Amino acid sequence: MKMRRSERIVAVTKILVNEPYELISLNYFTERFDAAKSTISEDLSIIRRVFAAEKMGKVETVPGAAGGVRFIPNKATSDIKDVVDELCNELSDPERILPGGYIYMTDLIFDPSLMNEVGKIFATKFADLDADYVITIETKGIPIALMVARALNLPLVNIRKDSMVTEGSAVSINYLTGSSRRIKTMSLARKALPEGSKVLIVDDFMKAGGTAKGILDLMEEFKADVLGMGILVETVDPDDKLVADYTSLVVLEEIDQQQEEIVVKPSDWVLNLE
Amino acid sequence: MKMRRSERIVAVTKILVNEPYELISLNYFTERFDAAKSTISEDLSIIRRVFAAEKMGKVETVPGAAGGVRFIPNKATSDIKDVVDELCNELSDPERILPGGYIYMTDLIFDPSLMNEVGKIFATKFADLDADYVITIETKGIPIALMVARALNLPLVNIRKDSMVTEGSAVSINYLTGSSRRIKTMSLARKALPEGSKVLIVDDFMKAGGTAKGILDLMEEFKADVLGMGILVETVDPDDKLVADYTSLVVLEEIDQQQEEIVVKPSDWVLNLE
Repeated sequence: MKMRRSERIVAVTKILVNEPYELISLNYFTERFDAAKSTISEDLSIIRRVFAAEKMGKVETVPGAAGGVRFIPNKATSDIKDVVDELCNELSDPERILPGGYIYMTDLIFDPSLMNEVGKIFATKFADLDADYVITIETKGIPIALMVARALNLPLVNIRKDSMVTEGSAVSINYLTGSSRRIKTMSLARKALPEGSKVLIVDDFMKAGGTAKGILDLMEEFKADVLGMGILVETVDPDDKLVADYTSLVVLEEIDQQQEEIVVKPSDWVLNLE
Repeated sequence: MKMRRSERIVAVTKILVNEPYELISLNYFTERFDAAKSTISEDLSIIRRVFAAEKMGKVETVPGAAGGVRFIPNKATSDIKDVVDELCNELSDPERILPGGYIYMTDLIFDPSLMNEVGKIFATKFADLDADYVITIETKGIPIALMVARALNLPLVNIRKDSMVTEGSAVSINYLTGSSRRIKTMSLARKALPEGSKVLIVDDFMKAGGTAKGILDLMEEFKADVLGMGILVETVDPDDKLVADYTSLVVLEEIDQQQEEIVVKPSDWVLNLE
């Protein structure tokens, strides 16, 4: 079926958006839509212009024989602030206070639409680092990390908290949780991550940073190059975390069980975005 | 910025695709793009026509004052067969045989792009059931179930295999794994799932069906109405599973350690699709 511009441009938009970061050759489009290269190029420049004007992400052209075009789901600063404000708003609901002074956030972590947005935020932050893998640790890190990996078109690798009969030989390390000072074990199958990979670490929560420190130690066993670490929520205490280099979205300042109050705010990284 | 049709239609396509199943009012579009209702309606009918012709999903109009338009990421039968063929092809790689006669499939389960496709397949299968929640059990069910939930615009609920200090009061049940006949525990926080919800269950693997049966028992405790169950890979043995009503994509027929051979095939549901 030979299409008009207004029709073809719908299909091209859908194809680009469906596979973030996937490089698609111009030939693919010219063949699929039986159109000249110049016609497709014009389509793409319209899409690029609209995405830029409407802050819907970036359409990037890679020149050369092995080149093509790809969609980069960059989030605009105003969008990032909106999503984090919504998160803070949700998290400050006193109904979330659990016995023991914990905060209930499982529903948010398993909200696919919200995590899709969070995934794009971290993808925007880490876009230029050229990582090979996104790494997380089960269980609650998985939804966030999967959406980051999806937005960056990277495979996800999940660190287990138990032994893994079904995954072959594995590397295990012991680590001390920073807050409760208990010894725990985390392990990763040898075949899950090639030695020397460039990785991003993504997790849902950081208090003292014991788990994050454990992941860094495990990554050393795989000779991995850790390029960045994204954390959904960090606590303001302790100030002195076991890891230094990470980006959080939300800072949990206080859970006051008596006043029934939760105090959260956007992280400095979010507040300082321009 | 006032846009031309070819520009506006790019933005409308992106907005629809970004939020599957989300009902978006015509007013939203007329205001955002400063365009007449009839203009937007024409845009939408072009998008609808292209999506249908290119098998890119469905654009559905809901009439009335509370109505609007929404994108339904239906997968075409040929697409479903292609994705399942790719899965079978990947799974039959003899390198996947692990000591003990297990099969390594963690890399596929944590491949965001592949799971996005699998999510759309189950969403296509379960689209008309009008469920409230997607339910899974940690750990390897999560990526598949998250993508099903994303494609259906539903929240995901994750059943834990341990106790949950940070999630308040919970219901726990013991269950017998069908294959190894061990007693295990699964639990779900009371606040994670309202009583009487309509749910879909999604998991990565079924052998005898002990885990699936456990989930059904747990759902009974929540008075949930189980509308469907989607399983990525089931084993051909035992033929007599503990649950009857489920849809799988792939059937694992044999892992022959001596011949170094894995035999998989698309499920009857996939083979019989027309």
